[in-house]
Amino acid sequence: MQGSDIFIGIDLGGTQLRVAAITGEGVILEQLRMLTDSARGYRAIVADMQRACRRLTQAHRVAGIGVIAPGPLDAVNGVIHAQPTLPDWDAVPLRAMLEAEFGLPVRLENDANGAALGEALLGAGRGHSSVFYITVSTGVGGGFIYKRQLISGAHNCAGEIANMIISEEGPHGDGLNRGALESLTSGTALGQQARAWGLADAAALLTQAEPRARFVANLSTGIANVIHTLNPDIIIMGGGVMNSQALFWDELQRQTDEKLYPYLRGKTRFVLAALDGNAGIVGAALLAQQRLEEETSPSRG
Amino acid sequence: MQGSDIFIGIDLGGTQLRVAAITGEGVILEQLRMLTDSARGYRAIVADMQRACRRLTQAHRVAGIGVIAPGPLDAVNGVIHAQPTLPDWDAVPLRAMLEAEFGLPVRLENDANGAALGEALLGAGRGHSSVFYITVSTGVGGGFIYKRQLISGAHNCAGEIANMIISEEGPHGDGLNRGALESLTSGTALGQQARAWGLADAAALLTQAEPRARFVANLSTGIANVIHTLNPDIIIMGGGVMNSQALFWDELQRQTDEKLYPYLRGKTRFVLAALDGNAGIVGAALLAQQRLEEETSPSRG
Repeated sequence: MQGSDIFIGIDLGGTQLRVAAITGEGVILEQLRMLTDSARGYRAIVADMQRACRRLTQAHRVAGIGVIAPGPLDAVNGVIHAQPTLPDWDAVPLRAMLEAEFGLPVRLENDANGAALGEALLGAGRGHSSVFYITVSTGVGGGFIYKRQLISGAHNCAGEIANMIISEEGPHGDGLNRGALESLTSGTALGQQARAWGLADAAALLTQAEPRARFVANLSTGIANVIHTLNPDIIIMGGGVMNSQALFWDELQRQTDEKLYPYLRGKTRFVLAALDGNAGIVGAALLAQQRLEEETSPSRG
Repeated sequence: MQGSDIFIGIDLGGTQLRVAAITGEGVILEQLRMLTDSARGYRAIVADMQRACRRLTQAHRVAGIGVIAPGPLDAVNGVIHAQPTLPDWDAVPLRAMLEAEFGLPVRLENDANGAALGEALLGAGRGHSSVFYITVSTGVGGGFIYKRQLISGAHNCAGEIANMIISEEGPHGDGLNRGALESLTSGTALGQQARAWGLADAAALLTQAEPRARFVANLSTGIANVIHTLNPDIIIMGGGVMNSQALFWDELQRQTDEKLYPYLRGKTRFVLAALDGNAGIVGAALLAQQRLEEETSPSRG
């Protein structure tokens, strides 16, 4: 493993497709951005991706490719399944397609896991050995990085705290448990509540004391449950809803702490994400790097 | 690391103190059992422990010592703190005391983590790479084993799911969050409910449809929350309350599955613990073995 290796990170989002050449230290050397426009069909999107990779592999000495996409997806086999954001991706073997063309190791992961890895290794979690990343955005997601490795779980669903049950009496969100964390605290859930309050959006809602108190109570329960299950060094909070953090950050930290065993209070670092919109694409490059290390290290199982 | 190495496992329980010579494959070669009788004071108990270790180190070629005790304890520094089961253990540096006398590496862990390691490596979890163990006994505890290593967390509190919040409206147990898993499902909680029903004990309570339904609903929420956070290959259920499992096992599995994302249903193995009362002491020996591997392996961080 040379520190000078360069990796391609691909962030396949519902709105934007980003393809970048990135160093092992997370420096973005060159980046191509396109609109995803999923209505074009998956073939056109994969073709864009391949074209961008071709250009970057010609310009840089690329050692591997990492792709992040909205889950659920099959990370073990490198296959993307159809879902609302990418409706016609019916078992598309993206990893095999890219490996066949470029002869490079390719790793596919869900976007929250990618962002978690980026933040853990090169963002707010730098230097910590067990990191849990939580994104509160359109949905809610999470990722656990232990000793610099992503813990993806047996079926690539570790960190899927969106569906964690927080309250028996909560709302019943689409495809989620009643009272699930996502149906209580996501940007989408807050947006729905905002409309009921006659307010423009989640940010406006969070200026109101009562819904803000409910949001903080529910999110702090989710975070405390994660801490009691995994006891990470550090919790990193990211995602669009965190743009309003000035309205609730201190209270969120206070209530989370109150819900911990007394001997755990004040011990878990609690910070905002540091890489902004680049956590995912940097994480994708790191996934490629880890894939390469697994292949070349004789001591890994 | 030789497969033929022998380790001392020590299980310091509130009732019983067990000290055994155990092979790396979990075979108990010789075991000494004493009553703990914590009223005697910690010095007398440590003296018993040392005497037993002396006898076992003379009879066997011992490579290390692992101790499990009720938490919370300071595994990093090998110190036991006072708590209801061991009231006068006021920062007793047990690891240092045993290392000084025997010149062997010693590792100290909480009892649920020890049992989790025993079950994961040599019990019901054998051959699985990510294992979560849950004990429902006097209290509720858990432990996460990933690629044969115990994930103990930044402050040795990983797996402390006793305090996971399950229901906003639940009872407020001693030192626990309102509606915490332990205050809803532990043997102690069930015993209290049994008395309110005029019944003898937890086992009798679980023959009654309504409290059994509540127990299953709460425990399945806790298990589903663990699966969505960590997505282990296998969940192992142990502890005294599981002696009544015939009354609720199928329903517990069905309700847990119903609380998972559809694509996760039917995928997590769900089994009873296999080592009975020996999971802890076998796990203690395995902790000693892992401590030794960490010391002798140049590749570990």
